Amino acid sequence: MVIARSIAELRTSRAHLADPLGLVPTMGAFHEGHLSLIRRAREECASAVVSLFVNPTQFGAREDLAAYPRDPSRDLELAEQAGADLLWAPEVAEMYPPGFQTWVQVESLTKPLEGLYRPGHFQGVATIVAKLFNAVLPQRAYFGQKDAQQAVVVRRMAQDLNFPLEIVVCPTVREADGLAMSSRNAYLEPDERRVAPVLYHALSQAAEAFRAGEREADVLRKWMERTLAGEPLARPQYVSVADPETLAELSGPVERALLSMAVHLGTTRLIDNLLVG
Amino acid sequence: MVIARSIAELRTSRAHLADPLGLVPTMGAFHEGHLSLIRRAREECASAVVSLFVNPTQFGAREDLAAYPRDPSRDLELAEQAGADLLWAPEVAEMYPPGFQTWVQVESLTKPLEGLYRPGHFQGVATIVAKLFNAVLPQRAYFGQKDAQQAVVVRRMAQDLNFPLEIVVCPTVREADGLAMSSRNAYLEPDERRVAPVLYHALSQAAEAFRAGEREADVLRKWMERTLAGEPLARPQYVSVADPETLAELSGPVERALLSMAVHLGTTRLIDNLLVG
Repeated sequence: MVIARSIAELRTSRAHLADPLGLVPTMGAFHEGHLSLIRRAREECASAVVSLFVNPTQFGAREDLAAYPRDPSRDLELAEQAGADLLWAPEVAEMYPPGFQTWVQVESLTKPLEGLYRPGHFQGVATIVAKLFNAVLPQRAYFGQKDAQQAVVVRRMAQDLNFPLEIVVCPTVREADGLAMSSRNAYLEPDERRVAPVLYHALSQAAEAFRAGEREADVLRKWMERTLAGEPLARPQYVSVADPETLAELSGPVERALLSMAVHLGTTRLIDNLLVG
Repeated sequence: MVIARSIAELRTSRAHLADPLGLVPTMGAFHEGHLSLIRRAREECASAVVSLFVNPTQFGAREDLAAYPRDPSRDLELAEQAGADLLWAPEVAEMYPPGFQTWVQVESLTKPLEGLYRPGHFQGVATIVAKLFNAVLPQRAYFGQKDAQQAVVVRRMAQDLNFPLEIVVCPTVREADGLAMSSRNAYLEPDERRVAPVLYHALSQAAEAFRAGEREADVLRKWMERTLAGEPLARPQYVSVADPETLAELSGPVERALLSMAVHLGTTRLIDNLLVG
């Protein structure tokens, strides 16, 4: 596996990689979710590139940029084991040099859900992803369903700006007890970790109700809220039943829906989702 | 010369064109300025693509989108004569399909000069240029110095978003009397056309003063304002002595400057500029 730091190094190495090339954009601190994306890129493409960049512009002023888990040497080893041909880990100063002032903004899709509680987050995401696409020039880019809104926003951005590539969204990878894998799970205290699967339980119960015939958005939402309410440590920020494409909150009977939530456990904010229908 | 309409047609044809490929983005109504860009692309690149798209999102609500001159069959002939390999003329509905919601925004460089009087203009420009770059995948893109701020904004955008291409800015082409060529010159009434070279005269006098040793930004600005004031039909909107890279308005002694102005002649708005130093 080649390791590139600067964009110039990346471009030189990328020129020797066969097409179709699959890009897996990451912020490092790899878990099984990241590795599943790298393996999928490895399987589906002639070459696989992993970018590792903790993107400061997608963190809010009061968010966890400084604390975000970093373990570059472990990440390097795991990326290589998962089959990456190239790991690109640029410096912040090269991605955002002095005078940087161009932003990619996606409008309505970034307003609800995460966008409501993380203003500026998706501007940072859309901008860095556009930069990664132009630097790496992949034919496919791999994202996790865990960050459902991110996947929808990135797909819209790629389509609207005519990026010549395919966005591939891969299933959420979970711990044995159902907790969605996330670098932020490392923040959880032992008692918080014990109750963290409550997000998945709440989603699963609503999905089960849907499969059993329940179609009312309000009822599905209440299923989730009730389960979360049963866990005193869990403080829900939002619980949503939304259109999977427009992300508009739904009411009345639904045929398909993105069930999603953000929940605080102590100082840690977790998100999770399931698609139904 | 191949003619492409849809993005799919463009991509199929583009795949057969040799690299390096030069792109000349235009809104049609070709004059010698456009043709000089196409010839330059033809000379410097293995293939030359001209895009022809009157981009609605860079026109303000009260601007001249509907009236903007259009002559596609003449444009086609001229592009071919100038050496274009491919003319791409997409429909508005394909460039901005329902649900389109992604914008490229360049911050401080779009605030002064044209940005002050044409809010939203550069958002439309940056967005369409990003789309054209991704659709055509050129190694070089050609813009005219006539739209000086546009050239600075597009160069910044391309650099900030890591587009793998070079922005080439070509000299303004002028009529024999000095009037900068512009599709909008067609709007001028005969008496307005007679006085239209006053923009170039004002710029030239300030540039001459600079060459003769005058370095005070305020004095250079006054040279231009005085010349414009001598022409009753000319109604200046702004007259600027700005930093050529940051576009910040200058005062005190200057080493290099972008002299620029926007002037109304009747209902027509003309812009022009000269670089000094």
